[in-house]
Order: sequence, then C-alpha cells, then structure tokens
Amino acid sequence: MSGALMRAEMREQPSALARFIERFDAHVEQVRALVPDPPAGVTFVARGSSDHAAVYGRYLTELASGRPTALAAPSLQTLYKADVDYRGWLVVALSQSGATPEIETVTRRLQDAGARTIAIVNDDSSPLADAAELVIPLDAGPERAVPATKTVTTELLAVAAVAAGLGDVPFERRALERLPVDVTEVLEDFRSAQHVANVWRDAERTFVAARGLLLAAALETALKVKETTGVLAEGLSAADLLHGPIAVLGPGTPLLTVDGGSTRELDELARIAIERGAGVSRCGPGAEELPLPVGTPESLAVVTAIVRGQQLALALAEEHGVDPDAPVGLSKVTATT
Amino acid sequence: MSGALMRAEMREQPSALARFIERFDAHVEQVRALVPDPPAGVTFVARGSSDHAAVYGRYLTELASGRPTALAAPSLQTLYKADVDYRGWLVVALSQSGATPEIETVTRRLQDAGARTIAIVNDDSSPLADAAELVIPLDAGPERAVPATKTVTTELLAVAAVAAGLGDVPFERRALERLPVDVTEVLEDFRSAQHVANVWRDAERTFVAARGLLLAAALETALKVKETTGVLAEGLSAADLLHGPIAVLGPGTPLLTVDGGSTRELDELARIAIERGAGVSRCGPGAEELPLPVGTPESLAVVTAIVRGQQLALALAEEHGVDPDAPVGLSKVTATT
Repeated sequence: MSGALMRAEMREQPSALARFIERFDAHVEQVRALVPDPPAGVTFVARGSSDHAAVYGRYLTELASGRPTALAAPSLQTLYKADVDYRGWLVVALSQSGATPEIETVTRRLQDAGARTIAIVNDDSSPLADAAELVIPLDAGPERAVPATKTVTTELLAVAAVAAGLGDVPFERRALERLPVDVTEVLEDFRSAQHVANVWRDAERTFVAARGLLLAAALETALKVKETTGVLAEGLSAADLLHGPIAVLGPGTPLLTVDGGSTRELDELARIAIERGAGVSRCGPGAEELPLPVGTPESLAVVTAIVRGQQLALALAEEHGVDPDAPVGLSKVTATT
Repeated sequence: MSGALMRAEMREQPSALARFIERFDAHVEQVRALVPDPPAGVTFVARGSSDHAAVYGRYLTELASGRPTALAAPSLQTLYKADVDYRGWLVVALSQSGATPEIETVTRRLQDAGARTIAIVNDDSSPLADAAELVIPLDAGPERAVPATKTVTTELLAVAAVAAGLGDVPFERRALERLPVDVTEVLEDFRSAQHVANVWRDAERTFVAARGLLLAAALETALKVKETTGVLAEGLSAADLLHGPIAVLGPGTPLLTVDGGSTRELDELARIAIERGAGVSRCGPGAEELPLPVGTPESLAVVTAIVRGQQLALALAEEHGVDPDAPVGLSKVTATT
C-alpha cells in the first residue's frame, strides 16, 4: 500500500512540463521542417495511456490544421497486413517506452506506405525512436511506477507541439507557460481527491464522462482507476453515455464528469444521473469536488484534469489498501505484437 | 420482463439481411458512381450501436480501399465549429432513425467542407437522409424495441457495400449469400446464451474483448448488456485490455472473448484471465460457450457474433428479471446535439 513511486513521479510533473515547455518552440519548428505543406491527414498510433494523449491529439490536430485526423487501428497492419497508401500523411506514434512491438510495426509499415513519421517517446534510444524520421523526446526522466503519470502529461504537450507545427492551436503562449503552476496548484490539494475516494469507497463500478478536448482526461482517469484499484471505471464521451450505457448508472455506480469549462451537456448528464440515484462528482473549473484552476484554457485543461484523475486513482488505492505502484499482474511494457 | 419485441426483431434478421443482400450490388454501384476515383480518405459519423457498425467500417473500408479511414469526433463540429478541409473525402453517416441532430449537423458541415456524403438510415425520409448525397436505406422495417438489433446487423452489410464500392472486400459473394442461413443457425440456439447468462448471473461487471474486424462485436455486445441489464460490461480491444484494465479481471468479473477465427492473442488473454480467477466464455467458430458457424469468413463473422451478443443480453435480462424492450430511462432516439 505504498504508492511512493507513483506519488513521487506525479510530483515531478511541474518540472517535467516546464522542461518540455522550454523546448516547445524548437519542436514546433522541427514539425514544420518535416511537414512544410499541410498534410493530407494525420494519424496517431498508440495504446494504453499514450492512446489517451493520442485522443487529445485527434481533436487538437484537426482543430489546428483543419486536416482530417484519425487514430490508427493497429491490427490493420499487424494482423491483416493491409496494403495502404499513406502518401502525404503524417503519422504520430506515442509510447513511453518506445518498446511496444505493435506500435513500432505500424509506424514502420505506414512509413513504407508513404507517410512522414514522428515518434513521441520517453526513451529516445528505443526501437520506436529508431523507426521514425523525427523524434520528440519527453525527457520526463525514468518512470518506474507501473501507472504512467509524468510521461502522460508530457505526451499531451508533445502532441500540442505537433498540432502547433501544423496550424494554430487554441491557446496562448502565456497559458502554456502558466501550466506548470496550474499543475502545482492541483498537486497541492490532495484532500479533494481523498474526499471523492471516500465517497466512492464501496463502488465497484463507475463511469467517467467528458466531451471533446477533455475526453482524453475521462479515458485516462478511468484507466488509472482500473489499473491501480481494480474498480471497473468506464471512461466515455458524455454523448455515448446517453446512448445506452446510462442504464447502468444508479445507487452504487457513481459518475464523475470532467469539464473543461464549456460543456453544459455535462450538467444535463449529471441531472439524469442524480435522478437515477447515482452519486455525481465533478471535475472542472470551479467544481466543488475536484476543482481545476479557472485560468487554464479548455485546450490545456486536459493536463490539469488528468492530474486530478491520477490523484483520484491514488486516493482510491489508499482507500482500498492496495499498492498502486505495482498492480497485480501488470508490467511496465506491454508486449503486444 | 417481456422482451417480446426485442426477440421478435432479432428473429427478423435473416430476412432483413437477405433483403439487403438482394440490393447489395446495386448499392455497390451507387457508391462507385458517387466516388469514381479513390477518395483521399473515409470518415464514419455515428453514435451508439450505429457507431459499432462504423468501427467495423473503419477496418473494412481501409482494408478494401487502402485509403486512410477515420471515425469522426462529432464535437469538433458541434462544440468547436472546426474549420476543416474535407475535399476528396467520403463521409459515411449511420443512424437507425436518421434523427440524431449531431449526426446530421456533422454530415452537413463536412459536406460543406468538401466531402461527398452517404447516409445509412432505416428511416429514409429522415433529416439525415435529407442531408446526404446518397442514401442507403436499411429497409429493416420499423424497430420498436429500445435495444437496436436488426438495424445494427443490416448496417454492417450497408457498411460492407460501401467498402465494396471502394475496393476489394475480403469475402466472397457466396459467403455473403450464406449469411442469413448462418444467422438463422445462431438464432435457433438460444440455449448457449442462456447457459452463459446463468454462469454470469451474479456478475455486476464484465469485459468483452476482441480484435480487428471483430472489435465491433465486442463493443456492441457490451453495449447491449449494459442497456438491457444494467450490468457494466466494458467492450474493448484485447490489446487495450492488456494495457491496464486487466487489473479488474478476477472472481466475479468474467471475460467474454469474441473471435473471428484468427486471433491466437485471445487464447493468451483467456489464459491470463483464468490465472486471475476470472471466468472466461468464448464466442467464435467452434467455441464451446457461444459457437459461431465455422463457414462464415472473419470479415462477416461480426454479424453472427453480434447476434450472439444480442442473445446474451436478452438471456441476461431474463436472468435478472428485467424487461429488455424498454430499459428504465432510455428512449429510442437520443437527441444529442
């Protein structure tokens, strides 16, 4: 029931983010040099927590570049060896370790199919770094806890740098520079997460819902809760929750909504959940349960919201008396081919 | 605890599919006429069960056409009004009712951004049918049970017709024509699903995992179970399950694997699940618990597998004594804007 590693790595986030922000403009220039003309489209390749950074990238990149953006379906290449034409496309692969074989395979095959390729990795001497034309190193320092934390939030900024290299991102430089302070503000308040964890104490299943740019935070929060505590938290779009899964919400199955500031739809969802007898907690600017700094723009609030999710997972693990550093049966590198 | 509607509509599937198969080649020709040259890419727009047909389309279309394929993120258009360039792209929107406002909005906006558009709808006088250039009607007859069944399996064939209009699909005409018989064979055996439902009787949470072309069946089975029974079934890729969520599997949290015939990875997953003390049921050709006809090619097995998922949801609803026709708090058309 230690969690010392996860806690320590969470605390490193403001400095890891600040280091990345120093190199942000240089990475934007590297992306521009690799892709001088607007790409035909952009595809992200990732799994697990990195895939949530990819989901953020799926929104931010299409918003910034105006070009269609997609998430790769790895099995098209690994299982079916699909013969595809990716000329003019940009492929962005994300992996903390850079050592998941399927991510490397997909990246190499799409590069052979004509795509330009970028690898976002923490280990820049990894097979994935080797495969790609441009490497954006996270430089977050070694990550030893099984649940990824500092590499995930740094990946979000790396994805933002890619988007900024392809067009106009919807946040100002000033907001980016303030982000480490915003994250510190969240990290200094662990009590809020402990309170929600206490309320959720007996829940064995929960939903975490968001929309748009914050969807990645809902998915990542749900994954962190699952891997550190064994509680089945399903992360999903608020719109998808209304299409059927809402039938599961009720007493004993609470809902967490994650809001970047603009989504009235989440209030409606919370109303329905309460009507069904489900407890509702909110993460967002000015939220009572898991407040986010009010000054962070929605397009960067995914970072602070994910830190809230990490805290919730850690607090729930403490509440359940399990060790979040090394969940039973999980390893740091998942060797999916 | 009736389920009479859902059961009756499930039984209509062989004839609904057979009717669609008669028109299959005509729809393939219409798609070719709309998109004579290979599109720059293809994007599917859908929610809920229709989104699972879109997931199948995401794989099959990229496989058949060799062109990058994506699933739309509706909020990019509805929340953020993203200024995008979809010239050369094909947009395929799916909605049983054709009346979900956000699907219509996204389709109209991407059409304005240069895309050619196809609507796959059961109600061909709906707003979505009105918005698109080409309409592929499901002609599955009115669907009155809240859980969609016959419209979903017919949507899968409509998606296959789109893929066939863009390239070579990996199944033969003969296999397509045999599909209604394969589905009848599954429908005639309800006992298998009742047996799994009985084993799952006390489970309040489960995972349903698959890969590639069968992923849509895992997602749809999980959604059907959630909406008809209130059991939290999370559907996901077997590869994603290994990246963390596996920590939730154990006694009381069983796993269903859905296999089209080629995925050894699912055996490895089942082994790990059993090691963790979780019950494992299998759906696939020759599977003991939920067998699929062995002659269906993997690229069409999504249809028979989804029928198995419908049976499981229905049998679980019976086991729990709830009425699957009208789950508490759900309505047939979800009015997400």
